[in-house]
Amino acid sequence: MQGEIKLGILGGGQLGRMLLQAGIDLNLYTLILDPDPEAPCQSLCNEFVVGSFADYDTVYAFGKKCNVVTIEIEHVNTAALLQLKQEGVHVFPEPEVIKIIQDKGLQKEFYKNNAIPTADFRLLQNKTELLEQADFLPAFQKLRTLGYDGRGVTRLTSPTDFEKGFEAPTVLEKLVDYDKELAVLVARNPNGEVSCFPAVELVFHPVHNLVDYLFSPAAISPEIAAQAQEIAKQVIQALNMVGLLAVEMFLTKEGEILVNEVAPRPHNSGHHTYKANLTSQFEQHLRAILNLPLGNTQGHSAAVMLNLLGEPGFSGLAQYEGLPEALAIPGVSIHLYGKKFTRPARKMGHVIITAATVAEATQKANKVKEVIKVKA
Amino acid sequence: MQGEIKLGILGGGQLGRMLLQAGIDLNLYTLILDPDPEAPCQSLCNEFVVGSFADYDTVYAFGKKCNVVTIEIEHVNTAALLQLKQEGVHVFPEPEVIKIIQDKGLQKEFYKNNAIPTADFRLLQNKTELLEQADFLPAFQKLRTLGYDGRGVTRLTSPTDFEKGFEAPTVLEKLVDYDKELAVLVARNPNGEVSCFPAVELVFHPVHNLVDYLFSPAAISPEIAAQAQEIAKQVIQALNMVGLLAVEMFLTKEGEILVNEVAPRPHNSGHHTYKANLTSQFEQHLRAILNLPLGNTQGHSAAVMLNLLGEPGFSGLAQYEGLPEALAIPGVSIHLYGKKFTRPARKMGHVIITAATVAEATQKANKVKEVIKVKA
Repeated sequence: MQGEIKLGILGGGQLGRMLLQAGIDLNLYTLILDPDPEAPCQSLCNEFVVGSFADYDTVYAFGKKCNVVTIEIEHVNTAALLQLKQEGVHVFPEPEVIKIIQDKGLQKEFYKNNAIPTADFRLLQNKTELLEQADFLPAFQKLRTLGYDGRGVTRLTSPTDFEKGFEAPTVLEKLVDYDKELAVLVARNPNGEVSCFPAVELVFHPVHNLVDYLFSPAAISPEIAAQAQEIAKQVIQALNMVGLLAVEMFLTKEGEILVNEVAPRPHNSGHHTYKANLTSQFEQHLRAILNLPLGNTQGHSAAVMLNLLGEPGFSGLAQYEGLPEALAIPGVSIHLYGKKFTRPARKMGHVIITAATVAEATQKANKVKEVIKVKA
Repeated sequence: MQGEIKLGILGGGQLGRMLLQAGIDLNLYTLILDPDPEAPCQSLCNEFVVGSFADYDTVYAFGKKCNVVTIEIEHVNTAALLQLKQEGVHVFPEPEVIKIIQDKGLQKEFYKNNAIPTADFRLLQNKTELLEQADFLPAFQKLRTLGYDGRGVTRLTSPTDFEKGFEAPTVLEKLVDYDKELAVLVARNPNGEVSCFPAVELVFHPVHNLVDYLFSPAAISPEIAAQAQEIAKQVIQALNMVGLLAVEMFLTKEGEILVNEVAPRPHNSGHHTYKANLTSQFEQHLRAILNLPLGNTQGHSAAVMLNLLGEPGFSGLAQYEGLPEALAIPGVSIHLYGKKFTRPARKMGHVIITAATVAEATQKANKVKEVIKVKA
């Protein structure tokens, strides 16, 4: 704020890009670290450093140029972040928190140890151990580390599925018979102030396991909404973290809420906030990590968010079809990520549709879905 | 939108900066021309060109690299823009429109010729002519060209004031005994679609002649509000221009609306739209000049906007006091312009305060005014 904040972000993808966009209001000096010289953040920061955020020396050297460091992806070198923290750099979320969240096994144990409701699970070392889990099916097997955007997850319904299981340390998680998937974004600043966004409902694409539709607010009772926010607060306080935390949850058919997984950063489940809430998730993350008072999270409009995924069968220089037709629908705004190349199911952007009610926004969203295509 | 739009902006100040911020969503390739190597836009565009936007060769060479050119300041070389237009570059607003608006004399004659209500005026060549205007007082004398942010305007109450008059071509404008100053932002795209934002009320600083408070929506009857929008539409249609036009108006004590002056670009009177309306003025300008359907201008919250001006008595490296205290007030957001140096009354940023009612937002705005100071 004083012109002296040098904010470093590990990762230069779309989340970093939207953080930079929000950061323009706060007059920050910004640095980005990303291995791709053409990453979406490339032309929007004060310093763009090409390098691996997984490499100790690279992250350490990058962090020494900053006084605040944050992330837009979890797969970063936490040892370097720990060292930076010891040397006085403000690292939010804290390296210890990132370490827990990087490993779905540690994450699940953390929930268990902190009495946070979550689906039953078992930790497996290898495929041999998997073969003994017939009694635990149906279940999802998830790689403990480096899974991302639906990769590293497989569904095991019966022992015949074991052959497609992973030969690596995994979490085997009991399949939850859920009614809805919900998410609550919660933020906490170093003063200990905590604030939640209203709960949203996520509908995932059956094949890609990516968010297909997001509805805000979720169609749930005020009691369930309040309970979802309480659980999100419980998680961020138990983690003792600073920044924004996306808490994805299952609402079971019995009305129970179980935490699925969390991400300690802006998240796909909060994109609508830029157009539908008084404070966006990006501004909120910046307020939190800069120890500013948190913003008002109230929704001013109902919203639907659609991811714009690369059309199947097209790879190459991205071409967007139907944007003018979509923008002609009142309440529609488009957010492209500045990615040069598309490939099937790559996240290329998103669309936010605001309206007075979720039903009205959904009708418009279905039209948007028909007209917009990302091809090559 | 297709990754192939190269948008050039003449001027790299705060308005350009906020246009770039909105443009991030549309995946534009952006170029900025500004004489100041440390202009607010410097690190936020694909190409930053240091040079004068008033110089023919510089503007022409810059424009040849773009397929769409717009402005964030009127004082640009319109001859170069005309040449670029003839060579197929999309220049919005059109050079012919900028030429009229650059010269307050032409602007007033334009209103007269198009039956747009405006205060009586006389065009003067020099100070000698001024001495003969005693019958026209009280009046404002305005430099025909290059006035900006309250500079180049003087109030003449009686002939004894003639000594402070300008020795240059000026407009002498009859003083209007007004009740309120209003502004309506109106946009038009090449398809001819026209859309207005709700009218706002402006309160100017008595000394600096800069916007001190902006209230959205204005406290006027629905009839006056509709009439203000009608006049704004009439102006943009008579100008036959594409882009965003800020139309400043007087509402006289007799309930008559007179056009004061216009600016063919995003404007201080629309800053609140970023936080209080479904579409911001910056997004709307981009939609207009890229020939996209215009966005929904509806306000979702009442708002007050305050300019953050450099404190009197301080010049040098800017320091912001009281930002955390201001941000702790619900509904307050802060927008700094990335200017390194402050000086008395320099526009350094603005604050938007949203609330359910203008009265509530005003109470908060008064608190904000007490706590925030820009010093050096």
